[in-house]
Amino acid sequence: MTVGEGEGRLPRPEVVVLDVNETLSDMRPMADRFAEVGAPGHLAATWFASVLRDGFALAAAGTSAPFAQIAREMLRQQLAAADLELDRDLDAAADHVLDGFGQLDVHPDVVPGLTALDELGVRLVTLTNGATSVAEGLLERAGARDRIERFMSVDEAGLWKPAPASYHYALEQCGVTASEAMLVAVHPWDVDGARRAGLRAAWVRRAGRGDAPSPSYPGHFEAPELTVESLVELADRMRD
Amino acid sequence: MTVGEGEGRLPRPEVVVLDVNETLSDMRPMADRFAEVGAPGHLAATWFASVLRDGFALAAAGTSAPFAQIAREMLRQQLAAADLELDRDLDAAADHVLDGFGQLDVHPDVVPGLTALDELGVRLVTLTNGATSVAEGLLERAGARDRIERFMSVDEAGLWKPAPASYHYALEQCGVTASEAMLVAVHPWDVDGARRAGLRAAWVRRAGRGDAPSPSYPGHFEAPELTVESLVELADRMRD
Repeated sequence: MTVGEGEGRLPRPEVVVLDVNETLSDMRPMADRFAEVGAPGHLAATWFASVLRDGFALAAAGTSAPFAQIAREMLRQQLAAADLELDRDLDAAADHVLDGFGQLDVHPDVVPGLTALDELGVRLVTLTNGATSVAEGLLERAGARDRIERFMSVDEAGLWKPAPASYHYALEQCGVTASEAMLVAVHPWDVDGARRAGLRAAWVRRAGRGDAPSPSYPGHFEAPELTVESLVELADRMRD
Repeated sequence: MTVGEGEGRLPRPEVVVLDVNETLSDMRPMADRFAEVGAPGHLAATWFASVLRDGFALAAAGTSAPFAQIAREMLRQQLAAADLELDRDLDAAADHVLDGFGQLDVHPDVVPGLTALDELGVRLVTLTNGATSVAEGLLERAGARDRIERFMSVDEAGLWKPAPASYHYALEQCGVTASEAMLVAVHPWDVDGARRAGLRAAWVRRAGRGDAPSPSYPGHFEAPELTVESLVELADRMRD
């Protein structure tokens, strides 16, 4: 654990609002799903970026659609448009990839991190642009479901993160003010949106894989209050 | 030219508001730029989707940053993170890819399409999430700069398309009401945003390349008023 020297203990938030996809779940197996139907694994990255692009476009325009609907539509389009030889028909291929969402595992630091945060008395909730059932299943499989007080989705907020209304919805559900809540995510756009909505925010920057360097935080987004390598480090920073 | 049977002539808009990237420009050479610095060409699609994703995230959060800034940041990140052997340093590689934007050509239907629309008396303007200089250079190289009455960027609107403010800015600049203007774009998110802002909108669906099928319009977006295969077909639909 690396705690920045001289940074001191972090004021403990009342509630930690956890993003789900990629922040808690390790999404690398999604690339394998593409390969399993006869498509290149690198399409997974383009696909996920396209799903967020379209969801955010709707948020910018003041409306929304369910994550699962956009995810399936973008997937069908990518699997149809690319010069691919799928080993099954388009709908079956899309089903196979999408089913992967329901079988992801959490990153290695998630269970010890949530346990440590819970033991510090911090209330833990999730807020996803996807379905609450995906988050519940993920934590259930990890044996950490009971650490989470509330599973929330932007479906009920009417706008995806990073629209301010999505964070305000979460605050209202938890009965806290913006300054009492800290958003925790691997996605800079989520950190930025939370900061602009008045919440505190931590950016989880997990170490790069292999020789790849850790990602750097984009200059076009509001900076996080702090950057941690893991949820375990986040808990450490809040410990007396 | 295929004009749908029985669809009749389309009421002519006062102003056609043209999207620029991909709608007018053929962006396929951007993939070659990645290859030229030692990166796989398929990164171009992920990169462009990521740039729009981050720009739309800022729009959803109520703010914005310049296209060129986000484009460079995302490019540096992708070129650094992937397991690549670049043939030059990161900044030089990013420069080489970004320079490609300034050397794109228009699709084959663009000049005859703009000419036909202009001759019908329709006012032609561009509205881009990028810089007006990119659009001006593109049309200049194509010898069709004079067909365009006004080159606009969302930079002055303060929010990227598809936020309603971006389209309202264009209407104000052109001195027309929403129903007098028609947005023309290859991107469904742009068609959707324009429709929700009250404009008319046409979706340009150019034929798929090789055996690839033409893309289908996503069900999560507002449908266009009409779909055309080219700007030439758009002009034909407005002809008496």
